[in-house]
Amino acid sequence: MKEGPTTSSIQTMTDVWDAYRGELDGVEDQIHKNLDSSVALVNTVAAHILSSGGKRIRPLLLTLCARLCGYTGKDVYILASLVEFIHTATLLHDDVVDDADLRRGRRTARKVWGNQVSILVGDYLYSKAICHIVGFRNQGINEVLSEACRKMAEGEVLQLYYNGNPLITESEYLRIVENKTAGLIAASCKIGSIIGNATEEQQAALFHFGQRIGIAFQVADDTLDYAANGDRLGKSLGQDLRQGKTTLPLLHLLQHCPDEDKQMIKDRMETRTLSDEDLHRIITLMQAYGSIAYAHERAKTFVMAANLDLAEFEESSHRRALSIVAEYMVNRDR
Amino acid sequence: MKEGPTTSSIQTMTDVWDAYRGELDGVEDQIHKNLDSSVALVNTVAAHILSSGGKRIRPLLLTLCARLCGYTGKDVYILASLVEFIHTATLLHDDVVDDADLRRGRRTARKVWGNQVSILVGDYLYSKAICHIVGFRNQGINEVLSEACRKMAEGEVLQLYYNGNPLITESEYLRIVENKTAGLIAASCKIGSIIGNATEEQQAALFHFGQRIGIAFQVADDTLDYAANGDRLGKSLGQDLRQGKTTLPLLHLLQHCPDEDKQMIKDRMETRTLSDEDLHRIITLMQAYGSIAYAHERAKTFVMAANLDLAEFEESSHRRALSIVAEYMVNRDR
Repeated sequence: MKEGPTTSSIQTMTDVWDAYRGELDGVEDQIHKNLDSSVALVNTVAAHILSSGGKRIRPLLLTLCARLCGYTGKDVYILASLVEFIHTATLLHDDVVDDADLRRGRRTARKVWGNQVSILVGDYLYSKAICHIVGFRNQGINEVLSEACRKMAEGEVLQLYYNGNPLITESEYLRIVENKTAGLIAASCKIGSIIGNATEEQQAALFHFGQRIGIAFQVADDTLDYAANGDRLGKSLGQDLRQGKTTLPLLHLLQHCPDEDKQMIKDRMETRTLSDEDLHRIITLMQAYGSIAYAHERAKTFVMAANLDLAEFEESSHRRALSIVAEYMVNRDR
Repeated sequence: MKEGPTTSSIQTMTDVWDAYRGELDGVEDQIHKNLDSSVALVNTVAAHILSSGGKRIRPLLLTLCARLCGYTGKDVYILASLVEFIHTATLLHDDVVDDADLRRGRRTARKVWGNQVSILVGDYLYSKAICHIVGFRNQGINEVLSEACRKMAEGEVLQLYYNGNPLITESEYLRIVENKTAGLIAASCKIGSIIGNATEEQQAALFHFGQRIGIAFQVADDTLDYAANGDRLGKSLGQDLRQGKTTLPLLHLLQHCPDEDKQMIKDRMETRTLSDEDLHRIITLMQAYGSIAYAHERAKTFVMAANLDLAEFEESSHRRALSIVAEYMVNRDR
């Protein structure tokens, strides 16, 4: 590992990408090394989704946390690549569950090779990652990662259970988000701290940091689904509602808008039909009632709390980078 | 654990079920204890498939191997229940991949709750089992089980890759079978030996024993798909061919029947159409060319080899029971 960048040189997310480019290249190399199944189809499908422009947020967080805790070795690349494998496995299954045709502008694996392949290669990537992880013989890592996987699956089932139900509470919504999204992000941060031989307190702090920015990440993502900004109007907006998913901006709107609009939204959710006019009306209402702003504020509050978790650590370039990644979670484009 | 039964009292599979009823009840209790997700839907779906009359072959083998190696504790029930969870997870995914409506005469989970639920509850059961397993802090168990899961997923992808291809070789067929079916059975046997503190040689012997009876189990199962015996004619036969799966009896037939029939079979496989007449013709040909008998012999050869693996152990009621389970693998009804 090279000497960390200086604190003052890291001001924006671009600075973070630049400063840790070498580290992320190390992760990338490892991801490709892991694609070593004797069944060629597995490698082809996995490569398709792994090279589709994911931001490698989890590997970046794992690496930053490891460096923050003083770890200087290269095992961090392997661990980061395995967390990305698990994330990729969930995407393969999510795309089947959501009937998704596109991901980041490319055809999904299920669209190219079918649902069957997508399910089974997802199973493979997950079990391959677990196989590799147990080889590290680190009980802390085994526990945090397997628990994150359990929670992710539970969160996904819960989301499906509430599908089409506009009456869920904010705390039920947050429980889904914490499980399905924040769990693996929190685990990534904690794994970094574990190989960095951090104290229990530091491990807990980074776990909570990850949990909070993970929730912020998902809430912000759910907000983008209603964030019309000219060129993104149309089909790419309102997908969650079309799929029957009640997210925070919609929850807020349902609590504040007139009964007539509430009824319209419930009806659209039930029938899974949403015209451009309906969507335009919903977005206009959200702006009028401050639903998008509310959700965005909630996300920012989680980021602020996450930044307090970092107080457990002394000022450093790595801490600074983590703080910038946290802010980035709520300021991304999709 | 109660004192083992006497060797002479165990002659048939019924004797085995009787003698180890108490042990299997212990496993059953544990399976129900594991259904403790805070998401009720997970427990409901898992209970549906777990109570659908599975024979608990893997838990039985794990328990027998543990007892054979001198383990007298109750952890064996937990481990056996977790292996059954993993097996159940694969069934949930298999039913989606195979578009199956029925399993053991009952509607499949995917038919009752849909593919989405079936995929996600499968993910849950698998990750829940891994979570619990790592809690045992036993490196040998972690490794053998995660490796078995990796191989299962690889075997399933391989099977899908060869789907609709009647030109696969016997060794390719056996590779699929070894991965998708024998891996978890072998792992079950080895886990039993690990908690029994067996020697490396004994662990390897029981692993190979499990691998061989696992292959025999699948080959025999594939044979049943063409084994007309009056009341099983019709829709329940020929499913593999309808799904484009080339199994050992069909492989044998394709190598021996006239070109005209070979062409008919390839055509039916390609178009996924199979009339009762076609099936009747294929079964008649298989009888004429000894294809079913050939596959059955192959299965029996694996059982014989498996029995030799048991020679590593002294004669005992547990060894006798394992030997009977091995025979049962090729003499089951479905």
